[in-house]
Amino acid sequence: MLLRSSGVVELKNKSLQQCETLDFHVFFNDLLDNDFNTLFKSLPSPRRYFAAAVPGSFYEQLFPKASLHLANSSYALHWLSKVPKEVGDHNSLAWNNSKTYCSGTNKEVTEPYFAQFRKDLNRFLNARVEELKAGGLLVIQLPDCVPSGALPFNTGAGFLQELLGLCLFEMAYLGFISQEKVHSFNLPMYFPSIEELDQVIKANGHFRDERIKILDHPMQHLPFDAKMNRPDLSVRASSKIISKQTLWIRCSIYLLRNLKRIAQSLIKKFAKMLTYLFC
Amino acid sequence: MLLRSSGVVELKNKSLQQCETLDFHVFFNDLLDNDFNTLFKSLPSPRRYFAAAVPGSFYEQLFPKASLHLANSSYALHWLSKVPKEVGDHNSLAWNNSKTYCSGTNKEVTEPYFAQFRKDLNRFLNARVEELKAGGLLVIQLPDCVPSGALPFNTGAGFLQELLGLCLFEMAYLGFISQEKVHSFNLPMYFPSIEELDQVIKANGHFRDERIKILDHPMQHLPFDAKMNRPDLSVRASSKIISKQTLWIRCSIYLLRNLKRIAQSLIKKFAKMLTYLFC
Repeated sequence: MLLRSSGVVELKNKSLQQCETLDFHVFFNDLLDNDFNTLFKSLPSPRRYFAAAVPGSFYEQLFPKASLHLANSSYALHWLSKVPKEVGDHNSLAWNNSKTYCSGTNKEVTEPYFAQFRKDLNRFLNARVEELKAGGLLVIQLPDCVPSGALPFNTGAGFLQELLGLCLFEMAYLGFISQEKVHSFNLPMYFPSIEELDQVIKANGHFRDERIKILDHPMQHLPFDAKMNRPDLSVRASSKIISKQTLWIRCSIYLLRNLKRIAQSLIKKFAKMLTYLFC
Repeated sequence: MLLRSSGVVELKNKSLQQCETLDFHVFFNDLLDNDFNTLFKSLPSPRRYFAAAVPGSFYEQLFPKASLHLANSSYALHWLSKVPKEVGDHNSLAWNNSKTYCSGTNKEVTEPYFAQFRKDLNRFLNARVEELKAGGLLVIQLPDCVPSGALPFNTGAGFLQELLGLCLFEMAYLGFISQEKVHSFNLPMYFPSIEELDQVIKANGHFRDERIKILDHPMQHLPFDAKMNRPDLSVRASSKIISKQTLWIRCSIYLLRNLKRIAQSLIKKFAKMLTYLFC
């Protein structure tokens, strides 16, 4: 939870009664190619807030100056605007040879990934500071921020990406896909440590950390879903969240839209591996 | 142009220079089943305003209290929320026997149509007055408001509906469709006179008329489009605006989505009739 540096919001002084007389105007933002029609149809009706949608990249200013009291980014900022060029270049020291994500095990790879994350987060913060009122709040929810000293490789998300990479390399070995393609494939995703997050926010200077908290995920109780192997790649809803032995596993299959040709086999293989390991 | 009664906006004092430093936040509203995805993709990029979409009926409050400076309703309020029940009931005095729209030639039919228009416009005004700031402006653009003493029957829109009705009755005569169906079909559309509009607004009491103006239509120069007979019923864009001898003709074919089975024949017949008359 970040506070715009130029003021303080006296949230605590608002009684529940006062809140009931307030109008809440909620704006949902996503990229232009999001399905806003489905978003609108999925909103509850009647609802206790006014809803609107805003298309566009959150790296740009999306609202008039000083017009928002609260901005919330949920499970979005770990997606990078692009994969750092050098990690896919086998002539570079940063070539992400046998991985398809930023595992944190190779410093040469981690550096450009973190540089891209820093650049993206800065653009995000610079856009939000324009839109927020003085004293406005910015809430950022990120999955799998690694604890100090740990590597993304050791987290639930990292474990999942590791498995996904293994599946891809196995499929390349079996001839379903070229090794070159697998080597050139890297997820545009970075899970920063809390320290890295704090460092970028401090260097940006527009916000100050108000509170950092590790949250329980509302879907933590859901069992592993064996139906995961259906080849539904079209929507974000195809992402499944499963839990076993306190390990978070998030299936980011929809990212593989770029690999449609092999996606069905890959998903089956991936689901089989998960079932074998956890069921 | 209507002014919220509780204050005055000093628009004239705003210089162009001041306007250039202002942020404009534009909200596009339509019913939930509108295609907002296409709307967003059709917006210019880059643009000099911030855009958002708001789903829902404009008979309800769609924005927080006193949050808007200007509300604009363009070519929408002549559509009624429903056809008055009695005009489709052949046991009623208000039965709209040989017409498929409110021509104004039968007082018994006009009355329930106007009553529905008054009710709808009141709901619209009551919702907008909540949303507008004190002194905020409400702009209503309506097509073919009939001049004092004239009937909708004598306007371009009326003429068009008349032709459409004739086509339908001819098709019923030829056996393409049952006479019953044509008799039960009435357009949920009312073109009020300026006096009627003024009367409803005054009785509502929340706004006062600031200015009433007859506008030139930006598509007035377009020639008659002979391609109109293509059976494109799916989108509002299928509505064509054509001009000949200063007569406005608006093709409201898309309303006939309810008559899909016969729509193609009807559109061809309708286009032929227009071509015969004006080309």
